[in-house]
Amino acid sequence: MLSFACDYGEGAHPEILKRLVETNMEHLPGYGVDPYCESAKNKIKEACGCPEAEIYFLVGGTQTNATVIHGILRNYEGVVAVETGHINVHEAGAIEHSGHKVLTIPQHNGKMDSAELKKFLEEFYGDESREHMVFPGMVYISHPTEYGTLYTKEELRNLSEVCKTFQIPLYMDGARLGYGLMSEESDVTLKDIAQCCDAFYIGGTKVGALCGEAVVFTENNAPKNFMTTVKQQGALLAKGRVLGIQFDTLFTDELYMKISRHGIEMAKLLKEGLRDKNYQFYLESPTNQQFIVLQNEKMKKLEKQVDFTVWEKYDENHTVVRFATSWATKKEDIEKLMELL
Amino acid sequence: MLSFACDYGEGAHPEILKRLVETNMEHLPGYGVDPYCESAKNKIKEACGCPEAEIYFLVGGTQTNATVIHGILRNYEGVVAVETGHINVHEAGAIEHSGHKVLTIPQHNGKMDSAELKKFLEEFYGDESREHMVFPGMVYISHPTEYGTLYTKEELRNLSEVCKTFQIPLYMDGARLGYGLMSEESDVTLKDIAQCCDAFYIGGTKVGALCGEAVVFTENNAPKNFMTTVKQQGALLAKGRVLGIQFDTLFTDELYMKISRHGIEMAKLLKEGLRDKNYQFYLESPTNQQFIVLQNEKMKKLEKQVDFTVWEKYDENHTVVRFATSWATKKEDIEKLMELL
Amino acid sequence: MLSFACDYGEGAHPEILKRLVETNMEHLPGYGVDPYCESAKNKIKEACGCPEAEIYFLVGGTQTNATVIHGILRNYEGVVAVETGHINVHEAGAIEHSGHKVLTIPQHNGKMDSAELKKFLEEFYGDESREHMVFPGMVYISHPTEYGTLYTKEELRNLSEVCKTFQIPLYMDGARLGYGLMSEESDVTLKDIAQCCDAFYIGGTKVGALCGEAVVFTENNAPKNFMTTVKQQGALLAKGRVLGIQFDTLFTDELYMKISRHGIEMAKLLKEGLRDKNYQFYLESPTNQQFIVLQNEKMKKLEKQVDFTVWEKYDENHTVVRFATSWATKKEDIEKLMELL
Amino acid sequence: MLSFACDYGEGAHPEILKRLVETNMEHLPGYGVDPYCESAKNKIKEACGCPEAEIYFLVGGTQTNATVIHGILRNYEGVVAVETGHINVHEAGAIEHSGHKVLTIPQHNGKMDSAELKKFLEEFYGDESREHMVFPGMVYISHPTEYGTLYTKEELRNLSEVCKTFQIPLYMDGARLGYGLMSEESDVTLKDIAQCCDAFYIGGTKVGALCGEAVVFTENNAPKNFMTTVKQQGALLAKGRVLGIQFDTLFTDELYMKISRHGIEMAKLLKEGLRDKNYQFYLESPTNQQFIVLQNEKMKKLEKQVDFTVWEKYDENHTVVRFATSWATKKEDIEKLMELL
Repeated sequence: MLSFACDYGEGAHPEILKRLVETNMEHLPGYGVDPYCESAKNKIKEACGCPEAEIYFLVGGTQTNATVIHGILRNYEGVVAVETGHINVHEAGAIEHSGHKVLTIPQHNGKMDSAELKKFLEEFYGDESREHMVFPGMVYISHPTEYGTLYTKEELRNLSEVCKTFQIPLYMDGARLGYGLMSEESDVTLKDIAQCCDAFYIGGTKVGALCGEAVVFTENNAPKNFMTTVKQQGALLAKGRVLGIQFDTLFTDELYMKISRHGIEMAKLLKEGLRDKNYQFYLESPTNQQFIVLQNEKMKKLEKQVDFTVWEKYDENHTVVRFATSWATKKEDIEKLMELL
Repeated sequence: MLSFACDYGEGAHPEILKRLVETNMEHLPGYGVDPYCESAKNKIKEACGCPEAEIYFLVGGTQTNATVIHGILRNYEGVVAVETGHINVHEAGAIEHSGHKVLTIPQHNGKMDSAELKKFLEEFYGDESREHMVFPGMVYISHPTEYGTLYTKEELRNLSEVCKTFQIPLYMDGARLGYGLMSEESDVTLKDIAQCCDAFYIGGTKVGALCGEAVVFTENNAPKNFMTTVKQQGALLAKGRVLGIQFDTLFTDELYMKISRHGIEMAKLLKEGLRDKNYQFYLESPTNQQFIVLQNEKMKKLEKQVDFTVWEKYDENHTVVRFATSWATKKEDIEKLMELL
Repeated sequence: MLSFACDYGEGAHPEILKRLVETNMEHLPGYGVDPYCESAKNKIKEACGCPEAEIYFLVGGTQTNATVIHGILRNYEGVVAVETGHINVHEAGAIEHSGHKVLTIPQHNGKMDSAELKKFLEEFYGDESREHMVFPGMVYISHPTEYGTLYTKEELRNLSEVCKTFQIPLYMDGARLGYGLMSEESDVTLKDIAQCCDAFYIGGTKVGALCGEAVVFTENNAPKNFMTTVKQQGALLAKGRVLGIQFDTLFTDELYMKISRHGIEMAKLLKEGLRDKNYQFYLESPTNQQFIVLQNEKMKKLEKQVDFTVWEKYDENHTVVRFATSWATKKEDIEKLMELL
Repeated sequence: MLSFACDYGEGAHPEILKRLVETNMEHLPGYGVDPYCESAKNKIKEACGCPEAEIYFLVGGTQTNATVIHGILRNYEGVVAVETGHINVHEAGAIEHSGHKVLTIPQHNGKMDSAELKKFLEEFYGDESREHMVFPGMVYISHPTEYGTLYTKEELRNLSEVCKTFQIPLYMDGARLGYGLMSEESDVTLKDIAQCCDAFYIGGTKVGALCGEAVVFTENNAPKNFMTTVKQQGALLAKGRVLGIQFDTLFTDELYMKISRHGIEMAKLLKEGLRDKNYQFYLESPTNQQFIVLQNEKMKKLEKQVDFTVWEKYDENHTVVRFATSWATKKEDIEKLMELL
C-alpha cells in the first residue's frame, strides 16, 4: 500500500544507521557528554551562526516542548500560542501537567499574527486585574506550522520585536524545520531563526533520525541547571550517544538540508499532480504536508489504496485530509499515487 | 582506557542493530501500533507467563518510573520506597514533579523488608491524623537494587502479600532485570516476578538496547487511558518501531537472557579476581555491579587507568566505588583489570 | 464615596457575626467535625433535597474550584468551560497548577450552550488522534455567570443530559448562587440545581459570609478521601467552626435566600434607574451585577464619585463597566447614585 | 469535658471579634489592599525591625507553607527539612503537589542541626551525580517545632550562616511563634528571627485569630509577582480585611505577645503539676505543648475525662500524648486537670 500518512513512517536515513553501526562498540560516557554530542553541538552552532548557543539533545517533540517551556517559565507564567498550536491540542496536556497554562490567540493558517500578539500582551498589561491572571511568560510558534505553512522573515522579525518589547522569550517548535528551511517559497534561513528566537528546536524524528530533537538556546541563555530539568522530565537519555551520533551525521555535509530538500521536491511533484487533477487544496502549503478537501465517499474509496491522514471535518460531505512526503518518499510513490487518483 | 564505569557504555547488541538495519525502510504506523511492537508484546507475555498482560514500551528508566507511578496513583497518594530507591535519590524529583510524594522506609543493602513495610502501612492506617498525610498508594522496589542485590522468591512473595493485604499495587523497577534473572544466586524467575508484581518493567537500556524499557501490567490492569498518560509525560515515541524491533529481538531466542548471563559471568570473574587480591567488598552483590571499598590514594591512582564509578564516602580515608560489567564486557578487559590491580 | 464595585466590600451579615461572638469561647474539635458544621450540612442537604449529599466547607472560590476539579479529574483529563469561565481567566492558572487543562468552548453572554457542548464531546470521541489529546473529564459552568446571566431550568437539564450521555460530571460554580436563586426572572431552584449537577458550591463570600463556600456532592459521590485532597490544597481550615457557624446561620430561617433577595431588589432599582436615564446595557443581566457601556470621558468623571469595576474595552471610545449590588447595599445608595448619574 | 487537645479549640480572642464587629459595615477594597491590611503590615514591620519587609496575609499554615515554598523554589529545587517537619508529615503532600521534593535530614527533638545541614549541603555539592538529584533550594524549620522545642539564638544564627554560605534562603514556620517568643527559656526575639531568616510566618490561627498567618519576607525579597502565586494557590482571600483587621488587632498594644505569654504561663502550671505527680515527660518542651509518656491503660481511662492528643507509640505498653495550652486556657482548667490526674 502506498503511504503518505506521515513523515515518520520509516526508520532512519541509512547514513545515520551506518554511523550507529560503526561506532557501536566504542565505550563512551553516558548522559550526553560523549565526543559525538560535542561534535554535533559544534556543527549545529556553526550552522546557526551562534557560537554562544547552548545545545541539548532530547528524544521527542512533546517532551522537548514540555521540558523547554517548563524550564523557561516561572510558576505564575503561561505560554502564548495559537489555538491550533501543537502544545495546545495534541500533546495530551503535557504543558498543563507541568503546571502552566497555554494562553491562546487566533491562528491564521496555523500562524501567529504579530499585531494580534502585541494586542494580547498590551491588553494583559493594561488589565487592572492581571494579578489574578496567568502572566504571558513566553511565546510558542511552530515553523512549519501544523498546517505546513511558514513565516516570512519579516513576520518572524515582527514577532521577535514584540517579544523583545515585552521582554519575553520567543520559542520555535521546529519538528519539521528542515522542510521549512528547504521550501523554495521561504526566505527564512537557519541563521535568521537563530537571530529571531531565544530558543528553538531542530527536529530530527521527522527529518531522518530514529528519534531526537536538538534544542538550541541561541545565546548562552539556557535556563539554570537545565540538565536537571531535563532529567526531571524523564528526558535524559542514558546513551546520549544515540542522539549525538544522529545529529552529528545530520549536520555533516549538510545531510539535514539535503534530505529535507528531497522531501520538498517530492511535495512539489505531489502538489503539481494534485493541481493537475483539480483537487481542492484546503490551504496553500509550501512544505511537505499538503492538505486536500475530499468528498467523503471518494475519501472512503481512496483509503483502501493509500494511507493518508484524516485531518478534520470540512463540511457534512467533505473532509480535510493530509498527504505528507519526507526524506524517504520515492518518486515512484508519487507517480503511483497519481495513477490512483 | 579500561571501562567498568557502567552498563550503558556501548551502543546496542549487534543483533539489534542488524534488525534495525534490515527493517529500516519498511513504512510502518507510528506510536507503537506496528507489527514489531505487537510481536514483541506477545513474546514478552509468553516469557512472563501472562497472557492477560498489557505491555507498553517507553524510552528510559526515570521516564518509565514517573509515567507508571503517575498513572497508577490518585492525587492524594504517594509511593512507598526505600531511602536509597532510585526514584528517591537519582531522578531529579521526577515523581514529585508529577505531584506525588515518595514515602520512605529504611533500606537493607538496597532492599525493602516486608515486615517493615507492613509496620509502616499498619501505622499509617492506625494513625488518627492520617487524613492529613499522604496515602501510601503503591510500593516501589528495584530488582536488582541500586546496590546490585536481589530479593529471594520468598521475600518477593512476602512483599506481594503485604501489598495484597493493603490492596495497593507492587511495582518493580527492572532497569537491570536481566542481570538479576541470570544471577546464579537467585531463585527468582521472570514468571515469579510477573506473579508477585502488579506492574514491572524489563530494562532494555542497560541490557543491550540503544534505549527502551518494557512496562508489563501483569493482568489486564493498565491504568485507564494509559497511552494518553504516556503521551502527556512526553514518553510516546513517534517511531515506536525503534522500541518494538529492539524488544522483539531481545525476546527472540532468549537473547535478553543470554546476554544478561554473559554480563553475570563477567561479574563472577571480576568478583573472584577482586577476592583473590583481597579487596574489601562493601556488600555481597550477586549481579553485575560490584562495590569495593578503596583507600582514597589508591583510588586516585587507579582512576588514571580504569573508569569506574565513585559511589559514596566510606570514611575519611576510604571510598566505595562501583565496577559494573555488562553484555558488552570482554574477558580480556577483566584480565587486564586484574593485571592493573 | 458610593461603592458598587463588588459584592464583597463589607464584612459579614450581622447575624453571622452575632453567632460567631456567641459561640466564640466554646471549645470545639478542629478541621470541620464540630457540631456547627454538622448542623449546617444537614440544613444544606435539606435545602437541596439531597439526603445523600456530601458537603465540604472551603474558604474561597478559586480554592474551591481547584480542589473540586483536581479531586474529580484523573491525570489525563481536563475540564470543559466556556472561554470567559472564571477558572479560565481569573484564577491565575490554579487549575493548570494542579496539572489539568481547561478545555474551552464559546460563550454566549457567559453561558455554555448544550448543543455546542455535545458537538465538542462528539468531535473529541470521533477524533482518531484523541489519545494524544486531553480527555474531557467534567464540565464547569457558573450560575450566575461572570456576566450575571442565568441558565433556565431547561438549559440546565439539557447540559445535564449531555453530561450523563458522555458519563462526565457537571459541576457548577455558585460563587453568587443566592443572587441567581432569588432573581425574579429565573425558574431554577436550589433543588433543580442539585438534581442537574453532580457537584456545585453555594457561595458564601459574596453572599454575606466573611469567607466560605459550601461544596455539595449531590449523591454520595465525593471523590475518595476528598478530605486529604482538601488538606493537600491548603484548603482545610483548622477552625472549621468558622465556616460551619457561618453556613449554619445562613441556612437558618432562610437567611441566605432573604439577603440574596435584598441584593436582587437593589439590583432591580439600579437597573430601572439606569434604564430611565437611558444608559446602554452591555447585556441583559437578571442578577446583582449590571454591565453598562460608558463613554470613556464620562467614565473618568464618574470614577471620582462612585466605585465601580472597569470590565472590558467596548470600542475605542467606550468601556464596559460593572455595578454590583449585594446583601449590604442600601436603598439610599441607589438613590444617591441616581442623583449622580 | 476538659480540653487540652490543641491550641485552636476556641474562636478568636474577644478583642479581635470586637474589631471585626466594629468595622463590619465599612465598605473596603478586596484582596488585601484595604487600610487595615496596610496598618497591620506597618505594625508587623516595626515589631520585626524590618522597614524593608514585604508582608502577605494568608489563611492557614499548610497553605502558607505551600505558597511560600512554591514561590521561592525553581522547578528543579526542593526544600530541606527535618524528618518530623510539618511539611514532610502532616500536610498531605501539599509541597509535592506543587512539584517539589522535601529533602529530609535527621531531627533532634524536632530541630535541625546546623552542622548536619552543612554536611548535607556539602555532600550534595560534592556529589558528581548531583545533576540527577533535586537541588536544595531553601531550608525549612519550625519554631517552636512540632515537639514544642525552640532554637537558641546561637542555633538560629548558625543555621542562617550555613544558608548564607550556600546562598539558599532560610524559611521559618511560625505557626506557634508567639508561644516560642514568650517562653521564659528562650533568648530569641522577633527581631532575631527577622535577622536570621529570609522569610517566616507569624501564626495567627493558633494564637488567637479565627484564621490567618502573616508571611514576612524580611528584606524586600518576596518572589516576583507573589500575589499571583498566592491567587494561583487559592490563597487570596476576597475579603482581605478579615486577615488585616485580625493582625492589626494582634499587633496593637502587643496583644499577640500578651496572649502568648498567658498560654506559656498556663503551660508552666501544667508542667509543674505533671512533674509533681511524677509523670514522665517525653522531652523537655519550653512552650505550650507538653508531651507525656502514658501507660496505655491509664491513657484509655484518662481519655474519658480529658481531651488530649495521641501523638505516637512509645513502646508496646506506652504512648506519647500531647497536652496543649493556649491564649484561651483558664487556670481553673489546669487545676481541674490536676485533680483528675
